[in-house]
Amino acid sequence: MDFELRILGSSSATPSANRHHTAQVLTIGNQYHLVDCGEGTQMQLMLYKIKHQRICNIYISHLHGDHYFGLAGLISTMHLQGRQTPLHLFGPPGLSEILSLQFKYSGTNLNFKLVFHELDTTCYKKIFEDKGITVHTIPMEHRVPCCGFLFREKQKPRPLIKEKLPDFLRPPQLVRLKWGEDIKDEAGNIILRNSDVTLEPKRSRSYAYCADSRYKPDLLPYLRQVDLLYHEATFTDDLRERADYTFHSTARQAAELAAAAQVRHLLIGHFSVRYKDLSPLLQEAQEVFTKTDLAIEGSIFCVRE
Amino acid sequence: MDFELRILGSSSATPSANRHHTAQVLTIGNQYHLVDCGEGTQMQLMLYKIKHQRICNIYISHLHGDHYFGLAGLISTMHLQGRQTPLHLFGPPGLSEILSLQFKYSGTNLNFKLVFHELDTTCYKKIFEDKGITVHTIPMEHRVPCCGFLFREKQKPRPLIKEKLPDFLRPPQLVRLKWGEDIKDEAGNIILRNSDVTLEPKRSRSYAYCADSRYKPDLLPYLRQVDLLYHEATFTDDLRERADYTFHSTARQAAELAAAAQVRHLLIGHFSVRYKDLSPLLQEAQEVFTKTDLAIEGSIFCVRE
Repeated sequence: MDFELRILGSSSATPSANRHHTAQVLTIGNQYHLVDCGEGTQMQLMLYKIKHQRICNIYISHLHGDHYFGLAGLISTMHLQGRQTPLHLFGPPGLSEILSLQFKYSGTNLNFKLVFHELDTTCYKKIFEDKGITVHTIPMEHRVPCCGFLFREKQKPRPLIKEKLPDFLRPPQLVRLKWGEDIKDEAGNIILRNSDVTLEPKRSRSYAYCADSRYKPDLLPYLRQVDLLYHEATFTDDLRERADYTFHSTARQAAELAAAAQVRHLLIGHFSVRYKDLSPLLQEAQEVFTKTDLAIEGSIFCVRE
Repeated sequence: MDFELRILGSSSATPSANRHHTAQVLTIGNQYHLVDCGEGTQMQLMLYKIKHQRICNIYISHLHGDHYFGLAGLISTMHLQGRQTPLHLFGPPGLSEILSLQFKYSGTNLNFKLVFHELDTTCYKKIFEDKGITVHTIPMEHRVPCCGFLFREKQKPRPLIKEKLPDFLRPPQLVRLKWGEDIKDEAGNIILRNSDVTLEPKRSRSYAYCADSRYKPDLLPYLRQVDLLYHEATFTDDLRERADYTFHSTARQAAELAAAAQVRHLLIGHFSVRYKDLSPLLQEAQEVFTKTDLAIEGSIFCVRE
């Protein structure tokens, strides 16, 4: 199953000529999860041939325009192009009010159900679950209410070793084996040991999106050993005071958090427009955490099982 | 003095891969007038190296998203990049309320004065005047309150033929000559005929922007003999019923209006996304009005004196 992240934009505050505002598409299986939706997201989706009709959920981290000014346009386009599938929108208080006002003045009555889930951005909390994944908020520390999102695959079934399976097993017993149980007789004695007939399950993958935030080491428990961590890195470390003052982070700080959390792969983004060349940000992060990449728009990061 | 129009986008409703939503910059002298502001306008301004700090006025025709979803982002960027010059915003009722709500939730206190002028979209009315131009609304007929805009240079002074000017003239008399008066003695007798010492003034140029509208021949009085007319042409004429039903126009209708109004040059735009190739729209209009062009993004149309 696919588990891959496509970057649509990663410019902070003001866009630059070749960098759009923040938006990312996380593909899990055949569903798209859109994470933030800066201005121009619908054009970026077209550019990268990502069908917006396959977006099931949209997550907005906070109400600074560079993270959501593309949302009303994208939803309007979904409507105009005949979407009927419900769309789930997760965002901070205020987002629903803004959209409702825009749609009121445009006379838009959406022809699909827009289900708004208002987020408590101050805590770690499960906000979505289906048979394959869970999504939790991660509290950020920014100038307005802001949270990140942790996407995690649920535990996967243990593959059965068919040639080792005895004939007497019935379907319910096969299910129990897949989920790690031994098979017992009526007296409670083990008659088939799980580890003899199953393999280790495939890894459950995870992606953590840390939106705009001051450096916040207390995020560690949420980020521990995630496969892929996106963390904002608006500035290089010589501007650490400015980062702190504006509730942003430096590339070094992002990398320190990645190292402490022992993640597998770090992406940095939300680059200040002052950096035409992004290599100083990358070098600074890689000095602390080697496996770092830039969240350049258009790039894809796959997480393997 | 420059009087030129730059097209930033001309796609209707939903954007296509290479066509942005409606936005235009009319340069008059050293000032920029931004007409509509679809999503991505700030990126388009950057692409064409148009400095947003020189935009003095923004005019929003109506509150369908394809005409204003780039506005909040552009204003935010002006703010973040330190604008201090007041900005005048002309738009229908509701626009100010939407922006205020967005800025409330982003915690934005603009560091320049945003002067909002609420428009009555139902009438022809002067909404702006400076020493060189006037701007009037033109009432459109659309699904929501909508108006176009007529930009018109004021009458220009008559150039003086210096070698024919008698020595006795004082500065106030020279001014009167420039504005077409004869010079008289105290008894009221003409002592210097204006036409003997002045030339015809340069032409006063005009641009009419007709935003989304059903075909509306009663626009004629406002459009008569304008130099440059932009008129929406969402559909080809085989879809005339659809145009009427959706309060839009066809290319042929736009051209018929241009011909009846005896304008000098017609631009058509607001193309439906169904037209990947725009030549049928152009051909259809040119059959009625030869001097028609497509409002392709990036193109510039100069009006000569």
